[in-house]
Amino acid sequence: MIDIQKQRDYRNIPIDKVGIKELRYPIKVLDKCNGLQSTVARINMYVDLPHQAKGTHMSRFVEMLHTFRSQVSLESLTYILEDMKKTLEAQSSHIEITFPYFVEKLSPVTGSHGLMDYTCSIMGSSRSPDKSRDLMVRVGVPITSVCPCSKEISEFGAHNQRGEVLVSTRFKKFIWIEDIIDLVEEAASCDVFSVLKREDEKYVTEHAYQNPKFVEDVVRDVAKVLMEDENITWFSVSAENFESIHNHSAYAYIEKDRLSVNKT
Amino acid sequence: MIDIQKQRDYRNIPIDKVGIKELRYPIKVLDKCNGLQSTVARINMYVDLPHQAKGTHMSRFVEMLHTFRSQVSLESLTYILEDMKKTLEAQSSHIEITFPYFVEKLSPVTGSHGLMDYTCSIMGSSRSPDKSRDLMVRVGVPITSVCPCSKEISEFGAHNQRGEVLVSTRFKKFIWIEDIIDLVEEAASCDVFSVLKREDEKYVTEHAYQNPKFVEDVVRDVAKVLMEDENITWFSVSAENFESIHNHSAYAYIEKDRLSVNKT
Amino acid sequence: MIDIQKQRDYRNIPIDKVGIKELRYPIKVLDKCNGLQSTVARINMYVDLPHQAKGTHMSRFVEMLHTFRSQVSLESLTYILEDMKKTLEAQSSHIEITFPYFVEKLSPVTGSHGLMDYTCSIMGSSRSPDKSRDLMVRVGVPITSVCPCSKEISEFGAHNQRGEVLVSTRFKKFIWIEDIIDLVEEAASCDVFSVLKREDEKYVTEHAYQNPKFVEDVVRDVAKVLMEDENITWFSVSAENFESIHNHSAYAYIEKDRLSVNKT
Amino acid sequence: MIDIQKQRDYRNIPIDKVGIKELRYPIKVLDKCNGLQSTVARINMYVDLPHQAKGTHMSRFVEMLHTFRSQVSLESLTYILEDMKKTLEAQSSHIEITFPYFVEKLSPVTGSHGLMDYTCSIMGSSRSPDKSRDLMVRVGVPITSVCPCSKEISEFGAHNQRGEVLVSTRFKKFIWIEDIIDLVEEAASCDVFSVLKREDEKYVTEHAYQNPKFVEDVVRDVAKVLMEDENITWFSVSAENFESIHNHSAYAYIEKDRLSVNKT
Repeated sequence: MIDIQKQRDYRNIPIDKVGIKELRYPIKVLDKCNGLQSTVARINMYVDLPHQAKGTHMSRFVEMLHTFRSQVSLESLTYILEDMKKTLEAQSSHIEITFPYFVEKLSPVTGSHGLMDYTCSIMGSSRSPDKSRDLMVRVGVPITSVCPCSKEISEFGAHNQRGEVLVSTRFKKFIWIEDIIDLVEEAASCDVFSVLKREDEKYVTEHAYQNPKFVEDVVRDVAKVLMEDENITWFSVSAENFESIHNHSAYAYIEKDRLSVNKT
Repeated sequence: MIDIQKQRDYRNIPIDKVGIKELRYPIKVLDKCNGLQSTVARINMYVDLPHQAKGTHMSRFVEMLHTFRSQVSLESLTYILEDMKKTLEAQSSHIEITFPYFVEKLSPVTGSHGLMDYTCSIMGSSRSPDKSRDLMVRVGVPITSVCPCSKEISEFGAHNQRGEVLVSTRFKKFIWIEDIIDLVEEAASCDVFSVLKREDEKYVTEHAYQNPKFVEDVVRDVAKVLMEDENITWFSVSAENFESIHNHSAYAYIEKDRLSVNKT
Repeated sequence: MIDIQKQRDYRNIPIDKVGIKELRYPIKVLDKCNGLQSTVARINMYVDLPHQAKGTHMSRFVEMLHTFRSQVSLESLTYILEDMKKTLEAQSSHIEITFPYFVEKLSPVTGSHGLMDYTCSIMGSSRSPDKSRDLMVRVGVPITSVCPCSKEISEFGAHNQRGEVLVSTRFKKFIWIEDIIDLVEEAASCDVFSVLKREDEKYVTEHAYQNPKFVEDVVRDVAKVLMEDENITWFSVSAENFESIHNHSAYAYIEKDRLSVNKT
Repeated sequence: MIDIQKQRDYRNIPIDKVGIKELRYPIKVLDKCNGLQSTVARINMYVDLPHQAKGTHMSRFVEMLHTFRSQVSLESLTYILEDMKKTLEAQSSHIEITFPYFVEKLSPVTGSHGLMDYTCSIMGSSRSPDKSRDLMVRVGVPITSVCPCSKEISEFGAHNQRGEVLVSTRFKKFIWIEDIIDLVEEAASCDVFSVLKREDEKYVTEHAYQNPKFVEDVVRDVAKVLMEDENITWFSVSAENFESIHNHSAYAYIEKDRLSVNKT
């Protein structure tokens, strides 16, 4: 049977990325407390295509993933990236895996059990011949934010709302999703829970009111911690508040690499 | 050229609805203050198909809409519903038009100008031979809600958040989108604005704090007004709070028709 | 600590549904081949609220779910529905659980392994005092559809596209998700796979071309099977084609209950 | 009234972007055929914030947009970018405006009238003191794509599907959205229409079948045209096929700047 994809292409245009996108697949990811965690991911997998090749072989991406899915970690990601280049005769490979990640979290006063969900991504690229690799972890953390301006100018109360902080990081050694979550929740007016009894609700209300934060404050406080972490070589952090007084969001964003961190 | 759709079907199964879905089209809708308002809609149009017909003629739906789009109102909806039945030789027709609707709204203290967006739907069905018609308007109104429990049990502050109230209504005579918006905003802890200067922010913070409302309170207060309105023959109202202390929503829902209203 | 929710309400308006919405939680669902399957769900849980009660107790919903999540099935759903009414002192309870469900599926010629994802919901309601229960299963099945009109009028080729069929069913006894998937895939021009080698692609292309189907045909063929199944007491089936020649969908919908089935 | 945002910040961390996100607003955009076109946009507006300032003034963004919205074009974008820096005392400003754009398009044989919708973005940044500006236009074009492999290996038929091509460009002089749409539709197996009568459907079916294209072919053919256009200084083009035989997408991506174009 003829292999159209293998035919020669004469347009002389190499393609940066070609592959599969938005594949939904069950995976198991490394879990700091429980070893492995079952979740469901959206996955993109690409390789480059040299100018003389007409097409890539799409089915091989899913076949590789099918094997790989039982243990997704930063370490296993480096293997699949090499495997993708080899199997698809490519010079570079890219993978993006996005999934909800769950952490058991006790409520702050009554210690009630519940799971909090965080939207996480692990992404990697590899380039031949030097095998230079680029790994990145992104974590989305829902938070509570109380507006400092509203608190200051109002006789009572202060508008507050749910927000989402997105932290993307590159790093020297391994990094736990749980550790990124912790530092973001520390920088919020208050963190967010799935179960809160009344005693807990009193605590989070008062704790948040005593820690008013603009989106500007949140990204600065997260950035401060990440800048001081020797393991982090690059990061970006955004905070988006789903404003309770508007139908749009307030937003702030900081991006840093180690070089500029040193110079600051 | 053969007309496959016109061929006879022998499965003996009539189809309730067949047509087009998720068509994005620019329309002009009736505007209480400005005559007509330009917006962009998502549109579904269906007719029934008798058991002996193999298929409907999809292109005719878009052709009809193309003519109809320059003035979308409850009145013109009744014409297109009749037109759909005639053009597609059907006994019933259905149309659903969903669009952002904008209302100019001054901020409460400084009177700053801005536009607020509301997601609205107008929906209609018509059935032959008696031409019984069913028209419905649905309006989505973003609101601020302050939690009464959090306020009561906390020494200071109170968690609050953006919420969305969805009101669907059937009615005897015409009804303005603007009037539904007004009654919902009245039932909220505070309404939401696109522009708020500091003096305005102080006002909305304090006003909201003084009007704490559960989702239960919001749907009850909206329901109360709708139940007393003789023009409303049926309604449903839901309130969803995008909780600032959780990563999920609080939700409440009431549905009533005139009959049950009278009996309550 | 005061319990605001327990206070008396004087508006005299009962609430149909109140609870939590859009909670994301990991669950395990019954799997025909493998016993249990880990997945991630979006969950809504509601009860009614009598007119004299001010509010419900939201945290209890999540606590109940936290226990219940390790085995989600139609059977366990009936327990949680009773538990919800008891725990929240309500007369009716409602739960809606939506999740991706994965089935191992071999490609049709080479037998290559891959997982297909289907978006499923199990939903239930219970009402006191008679404990009348209403359970429903909904399954979303992606399919290939080839247009019969395009095939007939064109000298070569035929436009085709991905479609999605949604089947909702009520039933007397238990029903497997896998069985609904099978009957829908049988009614498509061809079913859809995650891995297809070239020999498989030849097969699905030719098989689909030989089985052209309008959305009208797909809903009729699914309806025909469901109408003949004594276990099914009610169903609806929709087919939506993400048309390759348009930027909108073609859509068809049939709804039947046992009574009308008998009369047809 | 105290201005918290104006207070001094001591963390010594400048913020790259701060402002409003996901504001929905009606705008009028430049239309090649009709002068101006009314549509509805999602808008993000940001400025930088120097390390010593605690916060930005969010309400000013919406006020500026409210004035600016009546004529959105690449030209007016340059004014608002300068205005944003001035009004918010910033060194850089960013704006992203995304909207559906409609073009009247006659069907290929019968000349039936209909509007096609394209999702477009215009984005700009400006940096002081040199007023360096970066403007970008992105256009999303839905297409039909027929698989060359499926056509070649199958005795009859060929799987095809809707796809979306995204073209982003930087340029020396002005560029029309309509011109980008034209070049993309030329590179597809066939373009997509809102209204097609049977004669038209025969044409698009046969035309597409005679022009089979992988996602790889589509991005190469679009890239080829853009590389030869002296006005284009940078571009990226992606093609995503919503595969009719899979429940995931096939994807290809090329990015080029003038420098690398010259060197290729």
